[in-house]
Amino acid sequence: MDSRVQTLRNLLTGPRLSFLMEAHHGLSAKVVEKTGFEGIWASGLSISASMGLRDANEASWTQVLEVMEFMSDATSLPILADCDSGYGNFNNVRRLIKKLCRIGIAGACIEDKIFPKANSFVTSQNILVDVDEFCGKIKAAKDAQTDPTFNLVARVEALIAGRSVQEALDRAVNYFHAGADAILIHSKKNTAEQILEFAKQCPPQIPLVIIPTSYYNTPTKQFEEVGIKTIIWANYNLRASIKAMEKVSEIIKRERDLLKAEEMVSPLEEVFLLTNEKELDLAKKRYNDQS
Amino acid sequence: MDSRVQTLRNLLTGPRLSFLMEAHHGLSAKVVEKTGFEGIWASGLSISASMGLRDANEASWTQVLEVMEFMSDATSLPILADCDSGYGNFNNVRRLIKKLCRIGIAGACIEDKIFPKANSFVTSQNILVDVDEFCGKIKAAKDAQTDPTFNLVARVEALIAGRSVQEALDRAVNYFHAGADAILIHSKKNTAEQILEFAKQCPPQIPLVIIPTSYYNTPTKQFEEVGIKTIIWANYNLRASIKAMEKVSEIIKRERDLLKAEEMVSPLEEVFLLTNEKELDLAKKRYNDQS
Amino acid sequence: MDSRVQTLRNLLTGPRLSFLMEAHHGLSAKVVEKTGFEGIWASGLSISASMGLRDANEASWTQVLEVMEFMSDATSLPILADCDSGYGNFNNVRRLIKKLCRIGIAGACIEDKIFPKANSFVTSQNILVDVDEFCGKIKAAKDAQTDPTFNLVARVEALIAGRSVQEALDRAVNYFHAGADAILIHSKKNTAEQILEFAKQCPPQIPLVIIPTSYYNTPTKQFEEVGIKTIIWANYNLRASIKAMEKVSEIIKRERDLLKAEEMVSPLEEVFLLTNEKELDLAKKRYNDQS
Amino acid sequence: MDSRVQTLRNLLTGPRLSFLMEAHHGLSAKVVEKTGFEGIWASGLSISASMGLRDANEASWTQVLEVMEFMSDATSLPILADCDSGYGNFNNVRRLIKKLCRIGIAGACIEDKIFPKANSFVTSQNILVDVDEFCGKIKAAKDAQTDPTFNLVARVEALIAGRSVQEALDRAVNYFHAGADAILIHSKKNTAEQILEFAKQCPPQIPLVIIPTSYYNTPTKQFEEVGIKTIIWANYNLRASIKAMEKVSEIIKRERDLLKAEEMVSPLEEVFLLTNEKELDLAKKRYNDQS
Repeated sequence: MDSRVQTLRNLLTGPRLSFLMEAHHGLSAKVVEKTGFEGIWASGLSISASMGLRDANEASWTQVLEVMEFMSDATSLPILADCDSGYGNFNNVRRLIKKLCRIGIAGACIEDKIFPKANSFVTSQNILVDVDEFCGKIKAAKDAQTDPTFNLVARVEALIAGRSVQEALDRAVNYFHAGADAILIHSKKNTAEQILEFAKQCPPQIPLVIIPTSYYNTPTKQFEEVGIKTIIWANYNLRASIKAMEKVSEIIKRERDLLKAEEMVSPLEEVFLLTNEKELDLAKKRYNDQS
Repeated sequence: MDSRVQTLRNLLTGPRLSFLMEAHHGLSAKVVEKTGFEGIWASGLSISASMGLRDANEASWTQVLEVMEFMSDATSLPILADCDSGYGNFNNVRRLIKKLCRIGIAGACIEDKIFPKANSFVTSQNILVDVDEFCGKIKAAKDAQTDPTFNLVARVEALIAGRSVQEALDRAVNYFHAGADAILIHSKKNTAEQILEFAKQCPPQIPLVIIPTSYYNTPTKQFEEVGIKTIIWANYNLRASIKAMEKVSEIIKRERDLLKAEEMVSPLEEVFLLTNEKELDLAKKRYNDQS
Repeated sequence: MDSRVQTLRNLLTGPRLSFLMEAHHGLSAKVVEKTGFEGIWASGLSISASMGLRDANEASWTQVLEVMEFMSDATSLPILADCDSGYGNFNNVRRLIKKLCRIGIAGACIEDKIFPKANSFVTSQNILVDVDEFCGKIKAAKDAQTDPTFNLVARVEALIAGRSVQEALDRAVNYFHAGADAILIHSKKNTAEQILEFAKQCPPQIPLVIIPTSYYNTPTKQFEEVGIKTIIWANYNLRASIKAMEKVSEIIKRERDLLKAEEMVSPLEEVFLLTNEKELDLAKKRYNDQS
Repeated sequence: MDSRVQTLRNLLTGPRLSFLMEAHHGLSAKVVEKTGFEGIWASGLSISASMGLRDANEASWTQVLEVMEFMSDATSLPILADCDSGYGNFNNVRRLIKKLCRIGIAGACIEDKIFPKANSFVTSQNILVDVDEFCGKIKAAKDAQTDPTFNLVARVEALIAGRSVQEALDRAVNYFHAGADAILIHSKKNTAEQILEFAKQCPPQIPLVIIPTSYYNTPTKQFEEVGIKTIIWANYNLRASIKAMEKVSEIIKRERDLLKAEEMVSPLEEVFLLTNEKELDLAKKRYNDQS
C-alpha cells in the first residue's frame, strides 16, 4: 500500500480546498514537490505535448504510463493521473487501473468520451459515451483497483460537448453512484458561470474537482464558496517551460554565445540537486564501487 | 536514407562554424527547430534529468531511444544523439547504431568511459577505457551503420579525467583513424585554455566538436579561430525550463490563482501550434472520421 | 527501402499460390525461415497469447510492435503484421503504418471491426465499422506509408459477423478501390463453402488471402482453383509449442529428473545456432573485446 | 506485499527439495502453473532466445522486465528472475530490484560476472568480478528491496570460469554473509562431481540452488542427499517448443495443408482456456459493454 493513495483521498474529499499542480515528466514532478504543493496532476495534454504529440491518444497507453512511473519515482507527492477516456473499453480500463496501482499512482481520472479522445479545447466533437456504458467502466475500474483507497475521478464532458447543466448533473450523480470517488466538471467557457451553477446544484456529498484553464480570471474564493474541493492548475509548468525554452533558444541563436543566456537558466548544480547526484556518490563508497 | 544524415555531416565537417542546440524531448526539439537552429544535440544529461534520473545510465538504453524517436518524429532537423559510453561493449554499440539509423537519428556520440557512466561534472572518476578497446567500439559502430553517411562522434574524456593534452591528442588521432567522423573534446575547466591548445595541435583534417558549458564566457570567435567545426549548447533548454517551472509553480502556490502566472506562460494556442493540432482536424475530414 | 516489401507484394499478387506461416516472437520467426517458408504472418492472437493475454487488444500497440521489431530483426523473410482493427481511428492507423515501415515490416492487415477487437472465434460480436469510415482508414494508411510498395491487406469480417456473402463482396470491392493491396476474407465455419463462393464471385483483379483455421480439412487444391493468392497458416507454431511445453513440463514434474525429457527437446546447441552465438565470438576478436 | 515472495522463500530454504521450472513468456508461465509446479525460473537465456537474441544482454533490462511483468501477471506462482550480472553496477542493481518488487517478482538471481554477460555454456570467458564489489552489489540489492522477504540468489560462476571448488566456496560464504538468501552454484561439466563436492563442503546454513542442464543424467536423489534445496530445470520449455515448432513448420511446408499438422498441436480452445477468454465474456455483461 502506498500512503499517497490516502493522502490524495484526503485532498479530494477533505474539508478545505486543495490544489493539484501539473507535471509532465519526472523533472517537473520534482519541481512541483520542491515548491510545496501537496499533489500532482499528471496532465494528458502536457505529457503528450512534451512528447511532441497531440492530445489525441497518439502515444500508446503504456508509453504514457512509463512517463507516469518516472514521475511516481521522482516524487513523494500523490499523483492524479489524467487517463483520457481510459484507452479503450472497460477491459482496457481494468488493466490500466491495476498498472497504475502498481506504479504508485494515487488516482486516475477518466472522462466520458470515446477513444481516441479529442482535446476539449480544440475540437467541436460532441460525442459523449452512453451513461450506462461509462458507469460500467467506473465499476470495472473500482473492481480492478488493488489498493482499496485508490481514487477514481470521473470527468464529465457534458458542458464541453454543449449539453445542459442538467445533463451534466445527471451524469455526475450516476457516475458517483457507480463508484466514482469524485467528479471533475469541465468547461471551456471564459467565465465560471456554468461551473458555479453546477456546483451549487450538485448534491453536497459529491466531491468536486475543476480545471479553471479557460476561466482563469475567476477569483479562487468563488470556487471555495460553492464547495469545490480541488482545483487543478492543469498545464502551467508545460506552458512556462515552452516560453522559457523559446526565449533562451532565440537568444543563444542570435548571440552565438552563452553570455546573455546564463542568467536565464538555473545553474547546473540545480539539476544535480534535483536529481540527487550526491546520494550516488555516497552510495558508491557504501557499496564498494570501484569505478 | 534520411537526408538529415548528410545535413549533419555538412554541419560537422563543413567550412563554417556550426551550432547544435540541446533538446531533451519532442517538444524541445520543436522549439529548437522553430528558433532557426540547424541541428539538435539530444543530451544524455538532459534526457535523464527530464525523467527525474541522474546522468548515470539509470534509464535503460531503449528508454532513452524511445525519447529520441519522439524527438526524431517531432522535427525535420538532424539530431546528434549523446549515447554516453555506448551502453555496454562493442556488441551493444552495434545494436544501438542500427536502431538509431532506423529511427532517423543522424549521428551518435560515444565517449571513452566505462558503463555505467558517471557525469563528467559531478565525479572525480578517472577511469578511461583502453584505447584499443574503444577503437574496436568505433569500428563496430561504423560497420553496423545502415546509412553509409551516419555520423559517429568519438568523445575524448582524457582532459575530464585529469590526463594530459598529449594523451587527449593521441586518443583523438587513434579514434579518428578507427573511423570516427569527428572528435568531441571535452573539458570541465572554467577557461578554454586546454581546449584551445588541443585544437591548435590537433591534425586539421580531424573535425572538432566542443561543449563550452563550464567555460561559457569564452567568446565564440576564439573557437572559430582555432578551427572548431561545431559548438554544442548542451543543456540550456533544460535549465531554462527548470528556472521557469520553479518560478511559475512558486507564484501559483503563493497566489492560489492564475492571474500573475498567466503572463509567464505561452498561450495554450502555442501548444496546439507546436503539435500541429490543425492538421488533425483537416485529416478527420479527408478520411471520413465521424467522431 | 527494405526489399522484403517487394517480396511480400510478389507473394500476395503473383501468379502462383503462396503461403505465410505464423510466428509470434523472434525465435519462431527464425524457425519459420529455417523451415523454408517465404513469408511470415505475425499473428495478433499468437502474439497476445504468448504474452499470456487475450486476443482483445490488452497489450498496447507499442508493446505489440516491439515484438514485431524483434521478429523483423530475427529473420530475412517478409512479415505481414496482423494489426487487428488498427488500434484506434485513422490517425492511430497512420502512426502505426509509419512505425511498421520503420521497423522493416512488409505489410499490415487491418480488419473492419471496432477497437478494442474481440477474437473472431470466441465472440458473437457482430459490430462492423461503417464502410466509408473503414475506407478512410485504408486511405490514411496508404498515404502514411513511407515505403511506396508497403502492403496493406484489408480484412473483411462480414462473414464472421453473420452477414451475407454479398455484403462481404461489396466491402471487399470498396476496400480495394480505397487502396487496399489485397483482401483477406475470413470465416469461422467448418467448411470452406462460403469462402469458395466469395472467391468465385470476387472480381479477379482483387488478390485474395485466406486463413483456413476452422475449415482446415479442405484440400489446398480447392483454394488454388478459385484463384486464392495467399494462404495463412495462422497459429500452428503457437499451438505446437503449447502442446510440447505441456508435455515436457508434465514429464519433468512427474519424473523429478530430465532423463525422459531430454529426447523431447532440441539440444542446447540448436538454441545457439538459431541465435547465431558464433558470430558474437568472432566479432569479439575482430573488435578487440577483452572480456 | 505479494504472498509469492514468502512462498519462494519457503521453496528456497524449506526442509524438502523444491523445483523451479523454466518459463520465458506469459504463456509458458501459464503452462508451468497448469502442470502443477510450485515456482518458475524466468530464464535469461530463454527470454533472450525467444526474442531471437543471444544470451549476451542484447535486450535492454527494461525490455526483459516487461516480459517478466507479463509472466507475473499470467500466473499465481512465485517467479525467480534470472538477472544475469545485474545489468550494470550496484546502482543499476538497486533500480532493478525495486522494479522487480513492484511487478510481483518473488526473487532475483545475480551472478558474479561483468556486464554485458556471456553465456556460461558458449564462452571461455573467465572474468569474475572482484568479491568485494559483488558483495557491494548484494548489499545494495538487499537495501533496495521494498518487500522485506524478497529473495536474492547469488550465483557463483567460479566453476564455470575454471576456478577451484575452494574459490567457489569462499565466494559463496562471502556472498551469503553479504546478504544473499541462497547461493546458486553453477557448472558446465557433464558430471555432477564438482557440484556434489561443493555441496558437501558448503556450510549447511547456506541454501543451495543448482541447474543440472549439462549434468542432466545425475539422479535427483544424489542432489537430495547432499542437501541441495532447489533444482532449476532451466530451459526445457524453450527447447521443447523449438523442437515442436520446427516439426510442425516442416510438415505444413511439405504437405501444403493442415491435415497432418492438426494432431501435433493443441486445439484452439486450449489457447482460449489458458488465456481465460471466458472471463472477458462474463465481464462484458457485468460492465454493460455494448460492443
